[in-house]
Amino acid sequence: MLIRRADQISGVPMKMEGASGVEMRMMVGRDDGAPNFAMRHFTVEPGGHSPRHQHNYEHEVYVLEGDARVEHDGEIHDISAGDIVFIEPNVLHQFTNIGQSDFKFLCLVPVSFDCGSDEPARTPGS
Amino acid sequence: MLIRRADQISGVPMKMEGASGVEMRMMVGRDDGAPNFAMRHFTVEPGGHSPRHQHNYEHEVYVLEGDARVEHDGEIHDISAGDIVFIEPNVLHQFTNIGQSDFKFLCLVPVSFDCGSDEPARTPGS
Repeated sequence: MLIRRADQISGVPMKMEGASGVEMRMMVGRDDGAPNFAMRHFTVEPGGHSPRHQHNYEHEVYVLEGDARVEHDGEIHDISAGDIVFIEPNVLHQFTNIGQSDFKFLCLVPVSFDCGSDEPARTPGS
Repeated sequence: MLIRRADQISGVPMKMEGASGVEMRMMVGRDDGAPNFAMRHFTVEPGGHSPRHQHNYEHEVYVLEGDARVEHDGEIHDISAGDIVFIEPNVLHQFTNIGQSDFKFLCLVPVSFDCGSDEPARTPGS
């Protein structure tokens, strides 16, 4: 069993093109023996955003803190703590912090997919 | 895209043998098109508990509210809001609410496994 908290883990800046002010913490991933999916914790500073991108795997997101705007295939919605967001595979999406404090969320992805880079923040499962 | 909150969904009492005072809400599951894993939201009333059981798939848990005790292969740990818990496949485990208020957590499982019952609370992905 693994018990862990986000504040016990150092954040890795997301260096992916199009990302700004985003840190990732791998909560449960390939290196922990997760067989199917990885749980990642993201912190986006005010004004920051994830890349506007798409990929061949899904996101299952739970918003922990803050306020954000999510763009999904041209639609825009505001989200806040307690919202679940399901992003289907192959749909263009982006999360932007529109609040005055950090926007924090969990984002789960399959461990079997890889964005094709050795950059930790681009590798879903590790 | 799907945006949803736990309080917008009716809870299904967990009728599995050994469960007490547990309600499940399927946040993202098979019926939503989730291809790999399901996000479930559980509420355990004070004194309530999940079944003491094991199965051939993992749990990835995020504690939202409350205080609980988790038993895992004979070890006992206290957990609270913000804790991540990774339960490996085939390990005996149980969550018990030891607080005065509801214990709420997210529990993610693969959609491809099934506990062998048509009871919704026993079927990970639907």
